[in-house]
Amino acid sequence: MTEHATAGGAGGRHRVVIIGSGFGGLFAARNLRKAPVDVTLIASTGHHLFQPLLYQVATGVLSEGEIAPATREILRRQDNATVLLGHVTHIDVERKVVVSRTPVGETTTPYDSLIVAAGAGQSYFGNDQFAEYAPGMKSIDDALELRGRIFGAFEIAEVLEDPAEREQWLTFVVVGAGPTGVEMVGQIAELAGTTLQRDFRRIESTSAKVILLDAAPAVLGPFGDKLSRKAKQQLERLGVDVQLGVKVVGVDSTGVDVIDPDGSPRRITARTKVWAAGVAASPLARLLADQTGAEVDRAGRVKVNPDTSLPGHPEVFAVGDMMTMDKPLPGVAQVAMQQGKYAARTIAARLAGKPELPPFHYRDKGNMATVSRFHAVASVGSKIRLAGFIAWLMWLAVHLVYLIGFKNRVTTLLHWTVTFIGRARSERIATEQQIFARMAIQRERTKSSADAVPVSDSA
Amino acid sequence: MTEHATAGGAGGRHRVVIIGSGFGGLFAARNLRKAPVDVTLIASTGHHLFQPLLYQVATGVLSEGEIAPATREILRRQDNATVLLGHVTHIDVERKVVVSRTPVGETTTPYDSLIVAAGAGQSYFGNDQFAEYAPGMKSIDDALELRGRIFGAFEIAEVLEDPAEREQWLTFVVVGAGPTGVEMVGQIAELAGTTLQRDFRRIESTSAKVILLDAAPAVLGPFGDKLSRKAKQQLERLGVDVQLGVKVVGVDSTGVDVIDPDGSPRRITARTKVWAAGVAASPLARLLADQTGAEVDRAGRVKVNPDTSLPGHPEVFAVGDMMTMDKPLPGVAQVAMQQGKYAARTIAARLAGKPELPPFHYRDKGNMATVSRFHAVASVGSKIRLAGFIAWLMWLAVHLVYLIGFKNRVTTLLHWTVTFIGRARSERIATEQQIFARMAIQRERTKSSADAVPVSDSA
Repeated sequence: MTEHATAGGAGGRHRVVIIGSGFGGLFAARNLRKAPVDVTLIASTGHHLFQPLLYQVATGVLSEGEIAPATREILRRQDNATVLLGHVTHIDVERKVVVSRTPVGETTTPYDSLIVAAGAGQSYFGNDQFAEYAPGMKSIDDALELRGRIFGAFEIAEVLEDPAEREQWLTFVVVGAGPTGVEMVGQIAELAGTTLQRDFRRIESTSAKVILLDAAPAVLGPFGDKLSRKAKQQLERLGVDVQLGVKVVGVDSTGVDVIDPDGSPRRITARTKVWAAGVAASPLARLLADQTGAEVDRAGRVKVNPDTSLPGHPEVFAVGDMMTMDKPLPGVAQVAMQQGKYAARTIAARLAGKPELPPFHYRDKGNMATVSRFHAVASVGSKIRLAGFIAWLMWLAVHLVYLIGFKNRVTTLLHWTVTFIGRARSERIATEQQIFARMAIQRERTKSSADAVPVSDSA
Repeated sequence: MTEHATAGGAGGRHRVVIIGSGFGGLFAARNLRKAPVDVTLIASTGHHLFQPLLYQVATGVLSEGEIAPATREILRRQDNATVLLGHVTHIDVERKVVVSRTPVGETTTPYDSLIVAAGAGQSYFGNDQFAEYAPGMKSIDDALELRGRIFGAFEIAEVLEDPAEREQWLTFVVVGAGPTGVEMVGQIAELAGTTLQRDFRRIESTSAKVILLDAAPAVLGPFGDKLSRKAKQQLERLGVDVQLGVKVVGVDSTGVDVIDPDGSPRRITARTKVWAAGVAASPLARLLADQTGAEVDRAGRVKVNPDTSLPGHPEVFAVGDMMTMDKPLPGVAQVAMQQGKYAARTIAARLAGKPELPPFHYRDKGNMATVSRFHAVASVGSKIRLAGFIAWLMWLAVHLVYLIGFKNRVTTLLHWTVTFIGRARSERIATEQQIFARMAIQRERTKSSADAVPVSDSA
């Protein structure tokens, strides 16, 4: 049996292995399309995920296919690229191989150059037991799970008789006031306040409590004071209860334990929780650091050279959310895209015998986050700070342009039109599995507690 | 604590309970919108399922939201209708109550009139153990499971080294040559033969074997000899191996055991199987029969009176796939729609003191099935038999018109345009859970068999 990449590496061509199908990996692969190399892209999902729109899948606006085109389809015409589905379990920079667990076993892929773009996962700051009760927002699996929980919560509230229990199910807590948390909480508030307003007969969806928690003193801190204030105002206008300076110390099936700014503990009762608080670099960052002597920062990111390569290993690059550089860079898609492209071009230049490229320089194209329908905040350079409709139009344009895979753009625009104008959600499926199986598990656990069989047969 | 329906039944209004959110239940509810009644629709899913298009979700053409709008959203403006999420576990026609298991417990709903439109489920003809290996095509859960299996099979084949194992994963068997089986097998053949043609590097998706099995001697039998022959020809043109008169006697993780027309046993090795062979009426049909003395046919359907009511219980109606009448009716959406409407109008007429309606009469609007892109068969009345592009255009028009929930039509039309013209599939997500967790389970089971770890670390 042969190794995976050698199948494509016939003729002794330079073998580039890319780990990850996110923005970094995909831009690296695309920018190698004309290079005399064989590219193997290894990723644990078959799709490229347009992560900035994941919250729209979780809240029923877009379908999962719209934000996650198949990686193979994107690269189908790039004949020098092979996609391999696998979880990378090890990298050996001395032997120059990547080991991955594919759906059917383990495989080893040798490389001549390696671009690691494994991104970052959710971080619960050492409290991984929170994950079950407060899923993160990092994958399609996460978004579908949250979609089932959010729409399911209203369904469950509708069949409950006890007002206190209903309130538990009609309380939604989002932890983390960065862009993902703000976008998520804004969407849930719109769902409860508008979309679902006429759908139920026994509950008032508008009475739902939607709470945004963050230990930091500001919403969207990195956008600066002015936009931060505006975003908070807009959220409050939507009915979101924004609680800042509040530290989450516990999460369980019925609520969240917090410490208030004055140091006093408090409990928030809420059945549906979303975790958008922290990210931690892929464990591959530490693995690369251990083997190359590179530093690792608090968020687990590996420190790379000015050309995004690892110390002593010019052939190994780390790009995007899993790396850090001397100059601090934001954890946004733009950085990963630009670095993926940079690493690809560096490899191509070397193979062509050209001089090394100048050090990587991040071109900041600005930063934006939607708060609600027709309302976004945008910051471009050090001068432009926009909040409101114009920023929202910018958001719309940028996201449409960047949605990789042209085919999806038109349907996405249409889904958005429907959502923004009609306020409906066309993708609000909670599977039977999600609603009934999950409740059965919860009942099992809370048996003999107040949860058990609240609707009685009194006939 | 109160019973569920009385919450809506204030003022002593006539209480109509409808079981099921399929075509029958939904058409019954909509046709009661002007009647002086309180409607409670009890269903085990929160959505109305446009079942004739389920195969398009399973094969990546449409998103689940497009064929399954929320029942609450459809009925949001109908103030006399309440939707209750629950599995109906019992009906007591003497006490006039329906008992259902909601996500949080059990609830009892009293009625004055009852319309049972619980449809039919997949039947494995007494071999329910087949279900795990060959999922049916009855729910969104089924379609998403099959979508993961179908797209996942190509992914798995791509990482396998052993040609024999690859072939197992590149063989797809659909059992049942009715409309669902034909549509499904046609889509899989198009996927393998066209859509995925350039997506893989190690396998040839076009080499996939796509097999349609049926114990009957014809494809789409009820469409008549001519269309049956044409459909078979068209499937064969797509590369489908149509095997008729073949009886399936076993299904397991690696294949299907069949008995050939000459009585000899044979095994077909195939990892992905779809069951579209038989339907059995909801168990509620038998429950109603037991309580009213009505007959039950071989498919478990309850025999109703000419006005779709049950013997001795003019206030209890059974409509759609779960009932049978003196005159045989096809198991199609049209029957359920017309009967749901008929039962609703019967109730309204009685309340208005008007004479009973004439017996239910089915208006056959014809029958159609798509075989492939641009090719369908349609039979209308006893004369019209169409096969090919014109029939396909009819199919397209009819399905667009009937897709309940206007908002979805435009995006659906667009998705279709993309699919039919571009041949791409925009909804082809297989979740990580589906691919990796499923394979882990299979590995567990087949440990020490030929399946184990076929890709070795030879580096």
